[in-house]
Amino acid sequence: MSKGIVSKEEDYSAWYNDLVIKADLAEYAPVKGCMIIKPYGYSIWEKMQAVLDGMFKETGHVNAYFPLFIPKSFFSKEASHVDGFAKECAVVTHYRLKNDGNGNIIVDEEAKLEEELIVRPTSETIIWNTYKGWIQSYRDLPILCNQWANVVRWEMRTRMFLRTTEFLWQEGHTAHATAEEAIAETEQMLEVYADFAENWLALPVVKGRKTPNERFAGALDTYCIEALMQDGKALQAGTSHFLGQNFAKAFDVKFTNKENVQDFVWATSWGVSTRMIGALIMAHSDDAGLVLPPKLAPIQVVVVPIYKHQEELDNISEYVKSLSKELKAKGISVKFDNRDTHRPGAKFAEYELKGVPLRVAIGSRDMQNGTVELARRDTKTKETTAQEGLADTIERLLEEIQQNIYQKALNFRVENTTEVDTYDDFKRILDEKPGFVSAHWDGTPETEQKIKDETKATIRCIPLNNKQEEGKCILTGKPSTQRVLFARAY
Amino acid sequence: MSKGIVSKEEDYSAWYNDLVIKADLAEYAPVKGCMIIKPYGYSIWEKMQAVLDGMFKETGHVNAYFPLFIPKSFFSKEASHVDGFAKECAVVTHYRLKNDGNGNIIVDEEAKLEEELIVRPTSETIIWNTYKGWIQSYRDLPILCNQWANVVRWEMRTRMFLRTTEFLWQEGHTAHATAEEAIAETEQMLEVYADFAENWLALPVVKGRKTPNERFAGALDTYCIEALMQDGKALQAGTSHFLGQNFAKAFDVKFTNKENVQDFVWATSWGVSTRMIGALIMAHSDDAGLVLPPKLAPIQVVVVPIYKHQEELDNISEYVKSLSKELKAKGISVKFDNRDTHRPGAKFAEYELKGVPLRVAIGSRDMQNGTVELARRDTKTKETTAQEGLADTIERLLEEIQQNIYQKALNFRVENTTEVDTYDDFKRILDEKPGFVSAHWDGTPETEQKIKDETKATIRCIPLNNKQEEGKCILTGKPSTQRVLFARAY
Repeated sequence: MSKGIVSKEEDYSAWYNDLVIKADLAEYAPVKGCMIIKPYGYSIWEKMQAVLDGMFKETGHVNAYFPLFIPKSFFSKEASHVDGFAKECAVVTHYRLKNDGNGNIIVDEEAKLEEELIVRPTSETIIWNTYKGWIQSYRDLPILCNQWANVVRWEMRTRMFLRTTEFLWQEGHTAHATAEEAIAETEQMLEVYADFAENWLALPVVKGRKTPNERFAGALDTYCIEALMQDGKALQAGTSHFLGQNFAKAFDVKFTNKENVQDFVWATSWGVSTRMIGALIMAHSDDAGLVLPPKLAPIQVVVVPIYKHQEELDNISEYVKSLSKELKAKGISVKFDNRDTHRPGAKFAEYELKGVPLRVAIGSRDMQNGTVELARRDTKTKETTAQEGLADTIERLLEEIQQNIYQKALNFRVENTTEVDTYDDFKRILDEKPGFVSAHWDGTPETEQKIKDETKATIRCIPLNNKQEEGKCILTGKPSTQRVLFARAY
Repeated sequence: MSKGIVSKEEDYSAWYNDLVIKADLAEYAPVKGCMIIKPYGYSIWEKMQAVLDGMFKETGHVNAYFPLFIPKSFFSKEASHVDGFAKECAVVTHYRLKNDGNGNIIVDEEAKLEEELIVRPTSETIIWNTYKGWIQSYRDLPILCNQWANVVRWEMRTRMFLRTTEFLWQEGHTAHATAEEAIAETEQMLEVYADFAENWLALPVVKGRKTPNERFAGALDTYCIEALMQDGKALQAGTSHFLGQNFAKAFDVKFTNKENVQDFVWATSWGVSTRMIGALIMAHSDDAGLVLPPKLAPIQVVVVPIYKHQEELDNISEYVKSLSKELKAKGISVKFDNRDTHRPGAKFAEYELKGVPLRVAIGSRDMQNGTVELARRDTKTKETTAQEGLADTIERLLEEIQQNIYQKALNFRVENTTEVDTYDDFKRILDEKPGFVSAHWDGTPETEQKIKDETKATIRCIPLNNKQEEGKCILTGKPSTQRVLFARAY
């Protein structure tokens, strides 16, 4: 396939950009690092939102909305938080423009804000300032809020979906009476993310905890799900943070517990973003275009008629009408592409590029024979199939495709996860067979940093339920009790 | 009822604020004019979003997402647009904070943007700049995009939901090959909004067009739906704009038509916002709290058990379980409030305040008699009803309540719409019986402005399908061919 897509082998990064642009997912905006999410890309996000929102509500959460702007003073109340975000904050300083008298529109200096406002890079500060008013006693707890919102982080190096100045996400912010309950919430939301990644994105993930170096600014513990992309780089697809009492202390949020004693409230926060669309693309797609898991594909089945005369099309259309009805009754989305401005071959290429899981082609001979041609996007196989029971066949195939895409990604991860015991092997593997590298580490931030500086590999996570074993740190030779997962990462 | 709500009669404005705060809909944020939409208020917005989004898709629209930030230069390309919005724009000038060395976090002056960014007050400019790349020929048209987003307008006087610095809305932006098609789209979306207002919000609206003075900045024609609040003030609940070729010209968006001739593209935009929640509150509620139309109520039915002993509660709970199942099968949302921390009376007051349309109370005697007590929020009536067929009874009552709330608002509007023929009557009615005032106007902006300056009443709209009749302008006595609708407004 061409459509002018650079091959993965040749230039992975250019391949990714080509896919995003040519499959009509997104494009760069005129503002540095921002993107426009086009309708086809946005419809994937809408599907993700609907599923996740259902999962959040299923686990007792409600949605709310907090302001875009955060007073600068709030932002700096939690010391490590401001350190983590100060360098990438968009700052609002004025609230009015004016005409300078020469016909130019300029910022009105008389409309300077007394205190600058930060465009939220994340909402812990404004939310904990609000929770102070909502919480007096243990009866007010837990608070289980989520917010769907845009956030802004002024990134120097951006890439569509993976790292953009503005992005869309959800951020959950919960408040609890005990550390145990907050930790249980943090872990529960990690499970929700892992479930979503594996069963919807068809993306196998490693669940684990970040090292202190890689934690969220202000967290006591950061849990994450890590996935492996086809170029052997890791991608963090979601995080869930146990924030301890840090934000409660910064914003003085206390409650009276059952024993009538005042204590600070315990917090969590957790989020996933439009970055997941990037993960989806990078994990499954090929040189012909997107490969979308059926459960998140905006169009699951496309039907292309092959005809010369109008009466042939009429005949095919009538059949497609009843097929569509059957498919819709099963909750399967179907598009009948009867445009007369494009040839079937061009349509095939378009839906291949856009990753539609199943393509049905029907010509006049098929109508006579009671057959259709069914093409799978994931395996690129075609077969002639009976019209009888076709809706059931399609339903079964969509499930099979979802499974197959997952299994393929899982096999890839297994093949590209390597245990090493020496620093030489570590460096060699990173170059020769990039992927997850499982190795012993002495547990110090210094060693972690040195390995990062020398190899660009970071500790992606300490996997949950990690096997305990005696070993020696690959860099320092100091004793270690477990392997951790290294990789170069997005 | 008290709960400390000021009565409508005493102070309408304070009554409104009390309701918003005490019914847990929203609260003011620490940033001037911004608000926090609390879970209960946000769940109303979610219901509105779901219904409207379905209506938009039903009429062929798709969602997309455009950037929050607009380069200042874009913003000033359409002259009347910048005039309309320049005075209320939040401006981003820097992208980094730093520590000043004395432990204070300050704006890093070295991180000054070359061109200031405007936080979108509306997205015509950034979207039309994008459409330029999407449109070459008539085959690329129409484009029917909608966006759900936050926007910022720096308002000096704010009121929760009705006018806030940041608010949530949807903005549709469509592109067409002909003026006729764009006008048809503008009118279609007005119909969608009117349908939504009347059949979901239970809010009767007048459909009309704005005078040139009241048009959207950059539009050739602005259509609107206008509703009457219980204090006799009007509220604009939605607008749909025919933008002509203004934005296409400003951003040089041309297409090749079927005759192979280049022309500028025709545009519309249309939006409704969280302001509708304000309309909902003001139109229907009373001194006891919110009155929500069942179709948008987050909780449609609440069940309160009346008991002394645990076994009584167990008995009631078992029945409620089966009732809930039946109601949920009908798509009716139900909450069983079995908290033992609150007395039934307190629960009754809480759900009255929160506007839950139907309350079911069940005690042990009811269980013996096979009855329940059903209380309607809208009429404040109670009756003993058979448990047999209760789900059907509830379903029927919810429809009745929806109708009744609409009818009550419609009656109010009819009673408070007055035709006047002299300026003296006009001024007297505005004070004595505020509402819509239908009067002749000479069609000039000067007369409109003078009436506004002298009476604070504006022309809300020129109703669609307006009766044509001879008359004289109430202010100037000049001839007029139709009445227009005046009111003081939010």
